Amino acid sequence: LSPPGVLPLCHRLPAWGRAARQRPGLPLAMCRAFSNNKILVELDESSGVATMKFKSPPVNSLSLDFLTEFCISLEKLENNRACRGVIVTSAVPKIFSSGLDITEMCGKSTEHYAEFWRAVQEMWLRLYGSNMVTVAAVNGSSPAGGCLMALSCDYRIMVENPKFSIGLNEAQLGIVAPFWFKDTFVNVVGHRVAERSLQLGSLHPAPEAHKFGLVDELVPEEKLQEKAAAVMAQWLALPDHARQLTKSMMRKTVLDRLAAHREEDIQNFISFISKESIQKSLRMYMEMLKKKKG
Amino acid sequence: LSPPGVLPLCHRLPAWGRAARQRPGLPLAMCRAFSNNKILVELDESSGVATMKFKSPPVNSLSLDFLTEFCISLEKLENNRACRGVIVTSAVPKIFSSGLDITEMCGKSTEHYAEFWRAVQEMWLRLYGSNMVTVAAVNGSSPAGGCLMALSCDYRIMVENPKFSIGLNEAQLGIVAPFWFKDTFVNVVGHRVAERSLQLGSLHPAPEAHKFGLVDELVPEEKLQEKAAAVMAQWLALPDHARQLTKSMMRKTVLDRLAAHREEDIQNFISFISKESIQKSLRMYMEMLKKKKG
Amino acid sequence: LSPPGVLPLCHRLPAWGRAARQRPGLPLAMCRAFSNNKILVELDESSGVATMKFKSPPVNSLSLDFLTEFCISLEKLENNRACRGVIVTSAVPKIFSSGLDITEMCGKSTEHYAEFWRAVQEMWLRLYGSNMVTVAAVNGSSPAGGCLMALSCDYRIMVENPKFSIGLNEAQLGIVAPFWFKDTFVNVVGHRVAERSLQLGSLHPAPEAHKFGLVDELVPEEKLQEKAAAVMAQWLALPDHARQLTKSMMRKTVLDRLAAHREEDIQNFISFISKESIQKSLRMYMEMLKKKKG
Repeated sequence: LSPPGVLPLCHRLPAWGRAARQRPGLPLAMCRAFSNNKILVELDESSGVATMKFKSPPVNSLSLDFLTEFCISLEKLENNRACRGVIVTSAVPKIFSSGLDITEMCGKSTEHYAEFWRAVQEMWLRLYGSNMVTVAAVNGSSPAGGCLMALSCDYRIMVENPKFSIGLNEAQLGIVAPFWFKDTFVNVVGHRVAERSLQLGSLHPAPEAHKFGLVDELVPEEKLQEKAAAVMAQWLALPDHARQLTKSMMRKTVLDRLAAHREEDIQNFISFISKESIQKSLRMYMEMLKKKKG
Repeated sequence: LSPPGVLPLCHRLPAWGRAARQRPGLPLAMCRAFSNNKILVELDESSGVATMKFKSPPVNSLSLDFLTEFCISLEKLENNRACRGVIVTSAVPKIFSSGLDITEMCGKSTEHYAEFWRAVQEMWLRLYGSNMVTVAAVNGSSPAGGCLMALSCDYRIMVENPKFSIGLNEAQLGIVAPFWFKDTFVNVVGHRVAERSLQLGSLHPAPEAHKFGLVDELVPEEKLQEKAAAVMAQWLALPDHARQLTKSMMRKTVLDRLAAHREEDIQNFISFISKESIQKSLRMYMEMLKKKKG
Repeated sequence: LSPPGVLPLCHRLPAWGRAARQRPGLPLAMCRAFSNNKILVELDESSGVATMKFKSPPVNSLSLDFLTEFCISLEKLENNRACRGVIVTSAVPKIFSSGLDITEMCGKSTEHYAEFWRAVQEMWLRLYGSNMVTVAAVNGSSPAGGCLMALSCDYRIMVENPKFSIGLNEAQLGIVAPFWFKDTFVNVVGHRVAERSLQLGSLHPAPEAHKFGLVDELVPEEKLQEKAAAVMAQWLALPDHARQLTKSMMRKTVLDRLAAHREEDIQNFISFISKESIQKSLRMYMEMLKKKKG
């Protein structure tokens, strides 16, 4: 009974799972993942709503371990009949997620790049294609991959603090958002806004993001969880089956595009990220970040 | 000289006509249809504008008979050189159309479901692909199939009464709007608004519908016909041929998608609607409606 | 390293160049083009920003000579490493460009129509697919092909004078905007606005055009150049390579659609424009324009 858009994910899961398990020396990674090191998962069985709280300081960056844990946690919820909806939010103050972990893309082997990119794809395929109602409670800044996670949910509520910003700012770092980041963005804000924002690598303060629909609603920080619960209740009032089929119908084209070109997309990522010019600009960016901290 | 988007309709017309005539015991249905039982058609030859007034109380539901009559009436106008535009509106107070007639989808034979669905498709192919200028004067609530009819016109004017609502609320009934309902909706309001509205099965009060473009204009009830005539005159000021080719260019992709998958879409509908779970929820819905009336 | 969307243009350039050179009796046209008769090109090497000023009175109409000169000038800038961005604007008061030159479409040979249409296509393929940052500083009215040029840039700033209007008004003349005009328009304003505006052949006063995103910003006439320079600086702050790949990703689908159907599109144009009914309405339109002047 699962909708078409979700099928490829299920078919692909064993393959991805295998790849993960074959990582040399990492049989324990899977266990660690299950123990929820980086993401706190709480399921309220009475409401059927789970909360996934990112707690990977300092900035919830999307490392291979984080992504692996995220996918496994999401899959467990997806297969749990007691769970119908998930709220994703952050346990780290001022940041939702800083996006892909640059250390995973810098000075590593081709095999590592492939494994990392497959995990990024898997996160998106599972979240964007989830049968559950997904609500992003964005309680901090959310650049790049963090923005993608929010965009992949069914609804986005953001704290109204103008110091928090959100956007696909890859171009600022000299890299390019992959086509499926772009597709997800266009589905939310339309072609024109996406074209301009992606080319400028814009990070939009919360009020601006709300103005053109990148986030659906702004609330004071203290009202965020309450609001997320209320929105979730509204979406869960619908019969699951019809809602799931409708969601799949809306997202299938874009999900299928990656599913059909997954290996090609990995090869593109590897060849792009392996370029000396790209490696150099990523190293410079990391130096800058270190200096900022120090 | 007919634009490409309209060709498949013409090609398919004889086949559909045949099917309708072959309905056992219903040779008279075609005649009744011509006699305009359920739709009042008036053509003002001086302006070239026809009005189709739905008068099928209590709620102008889209039964097989209604749809058959609608298609035949529209085809007659389409072939009448004196007619260049059509205003669709309701003669029943407070309701434009309640959408597909649930009794046609409940406890009937597979053949009946097929015939009914083909008539729903035909209505949309003809209205969305019409060469005439089509204006919806929405003078009452317009859920589901009623909303589709409005969406298929060139322009939508709605009475500003917030008690009147419009939307594709199929998900509320546990059913799924077909892909071509969705395509038509996305073409009007964009992907994001459609995704959210379809998943929630939202019925939008007129002012909200106007805010995000589901309807183009709101007017007081007493100004509706006057406004519809004025809009029609504005559209008819353009040369027909260029306007028709432009309309076809805008709608062809979406019309062709159904034309190419019509039988498949009928089979999908039959297998979905024949499920015991769906039949059960439709029966419950009809019980609820009966109780409301009683 | 050039992005995929731009490749077909390069591949096609020699073919087009050859065709141009083969025009009987027009070997000098190419030289004239280089001498910038109709377009004033200034490159500020310190900022890397060129300005192309249309100076072809009375209305900067897009004749074959104008288009040829435009393409050659743009190509020279594209190949000049000192140039990273182009501002297109008008040196003629009150008009940006009046669009395609009707005299090129009226009473000419099939060969001429083919050559002219190829030049229109080339202009769009090069401008919409340009690797440079392109800003339209719209300092006057901009109907039809003039609007297309503005739509093909990365950003549109328009003088806030409500007497200046912009739009794809082809339908008003009884002709149809080609599918790639439509695609470009939809990418900027979305499907619904485009459908209505194209069918009505609307010319939108600057404030209205700004309201629904046809132009990005309005400024007083005296601030236009300053604003264009500021916007350009903002876009040039991004690393070229990532910005170019992103731009190509956003525009590739639409560029490829014409590149794949270019000859077919030329044949369509020729058979449409050669119709006696179309020729007649163009002649009437030219008569009307002449009377206005006289």
